[in-house]
Amino acid sequence: MAENENGSATKRLKTDTENECGDSGELSSESPVSDFEITRILRDGAREKTIFIHGKVKDQDAVVILEKTPIRQDTLSELLKSSHLKLEMKNDVYSTYQLQAPAHLNEIKTTVVCPATEKHVKKYLHQEVFLVEESGEDYRNLTLPYINNQSFSVQWVHNILEKKAEADRVVFEDPDPDTGFVLLPDFKWDQKQLQDLYLLAIVHRRDVKSLRDLTSEHLPLLTNIRSKGENAIRQQYGVPPSKLRVYLHYQPSYYHLHVHFTSLEYDAPGCGVERAHLLSDVIQNLQADSSYYHNRSLAFPLRADDGLLAMFKKAGKL
Amino acid sequence: MAENENGSATKRLKTDTENECGDSGELSSESPVSDFEITRILRDGAREKTIFIHGKVKDQDAVVILEKTPIRQDTLSELLKSSHLKLEMKNDVYSTYQLQAPAHLNEIKTTVVCPATEKHVKKYLHQEVFLVEESGEDYRNLTLPYINNQSFSVQWVHNILEKKAEADRVVFEDPDPDTGFVLLPDFKWDQKQLQDLYLLAIVHRRDVKSLRDLTSEHLPLLTNIRSKGENAIRQQYGVPPSKLRVYLHYQPSYYHLHVHFTSLEYDAPGCGVERAHLLSDVIQNLQADSSYYHNRSLAFPLRADDGLLAMFKKAGKL
Repeated sequence: MAENENGSATKRLKTDTENECGDSGELSSESPVSDFEITRILRDGAREKTIFIHGKVKDQDAVVILEKTPIRQDTLSELLKSSHLKLEMKNDVYSTYQLQAPAHLNEIKTTVVCPATEKHVKKYLHQEVFLVEESGEDYRNLTLPYINNQSFSVQWVHNILEKKAEADRVVFEDPDPDTGFVLLPDFKWDQKQLQDLYLLAIVHRRDVKSLRDLTSEHLPLLTNIRSKGENAIRQQYGVPPSKLRVYLHYQPSYYHLHVHFTSLEYDAPGCGVERAHLLSDVIQNLQADSSYYHNRSLAFPLRADDGLLAMFKKAGKL
Repeated sequence: MAENENGSATKRLKTDTENECGDSGELSSESPVSDFEITRILRDGAREKTIFIHGKVKDQDAVVILEKTPIRQDTLSELLKSSHLKLEMKNDVYSTYQLQAPAHLNEIKTTVVCPATEKHVKKYLHQEVFLVEESGEDYRNLTLPYINNQSFSVQWVHNILEKKAEADRVVFEDPDPDTGFVLLPDFKWDQKQLQDLYLLAIVHRRDVKSLRDLTSEHLPLLTNIRSKGENAIRQQYGVPPSKLRVYLHYQPSYYHLHVHFTSLEYDAPGCGVERAHLLSDVIQNLQADSSYYHNRSLAFPLRADDGLLAMFKKAGKL
């Protein structure tokens, strides 16, 4: 690739593989990205240096996702020695610059979905989020009927518990039908490093939907998950309990009781105070009051397109 | 800047302003970064695309911080049209590429601290974090004596309450000595956009150190902060309570009671379940049991270099 003195390329460039979206395999001289006309920004992640764009390649809908790559330790020396610096600010011992790096040391990961359906676009579109406060009564009048009507399938959970799927991923199992559980890595964790350790304990009991169903009757189950889950993670990965965040979600993403174990140093999605409940707090609250989670108002976030949010709005609760 | 065909620069490049670190203002032909010898990586933020490096510029200690810049919407079309793509993977409607962009559209923010002291290095060094479970007894035997011994100054808080500082930043005030508070933007918020809205309510009372001191006596204070804080934010910024996360920290960073108001969609530092306590939960817990926060075990994270962690270790609590 050739650049002129101020760094801008003047020619439209080609991809190494020039199979254009929607052209049924016919080779084209244009890349799906250089040919892409932007319609709108779906989501802008300034912190993660990522952007989700909706647009068209010829007449086809497409989504393009750009994400800057992490700074690589193995090419860091080369990066520092071969870049150009523009001074921005100098004050005492501090100075800031804009660094212009050789392109091959500073790539941007690009994902193209083409042709993209409406469902793709909706999936990537930033959705407004609202905090709902659900009383015990709201749960019984609105949320529980909603969950039952939706009849969310938890077949995939039963497949795990029955060893019909993911049997090779199980890290630990306690087979007791009342207090037992299966411990396995969450799909978000690639198991390549401990920094973002993420495991799930899924209980064998099938009669506990969520935090809302828990009473002091379930204390042996909860304390068992805590102690045996922590032990298994210490044995398997060498990570002690003081490095773990152990919690439940409310609302959960599926209504079969499960507990999250994540590395304390990993800013895991869903570990915010508005959705996560520390297992140690849950245990103490049930020890003090068996009906704690039956009666309390619980706050949680819902996306604008969530059917449950519509229920709360219709009932005048938001 | 000129690059050769495969994108690597062959010459050592100069900064636009060539004042070298530690050379007492004398001009030099070397840039502080191209001359930088890496000693070790202090911290690697893969999610945020940032890296903190300790090293030397000649014989001076220095810290260099690199952070990839957010993808700019205003230059997005130019970026897509003038970049080179390398196909990585194609499967059905999905394909991924590595995009090589013109350097001026893909800069890296660089901060240099030179000469850097040991304190600078320690500040940027990634610190291990441990979860501590503090019983009510631990609080009275270990934490409270530690806080009192440290005599952390809250003079800056008193200056705000007495209008000796930051008076122009106050968004709302209820002057009542028992239930009143001052509401002002947190320093982390630049007030330029609502996405990362962050305000603090600091109480006028000076006898409440933290969550641990709260009893049902403080319910009028807490409900007042909640309702008047939410109202003020709705009036001033047009943000309704359903878009807010309202919480206390334990441990707090200073021992004078304050409440955090952050945008629900902003992944604010310190909003994780291991440190944050929703104000709505705190109010309900105190309504049910006035001594809830006096007696409960509370979990919180401490950095490896925190003096309080040393206290817990010495007492055999970790």
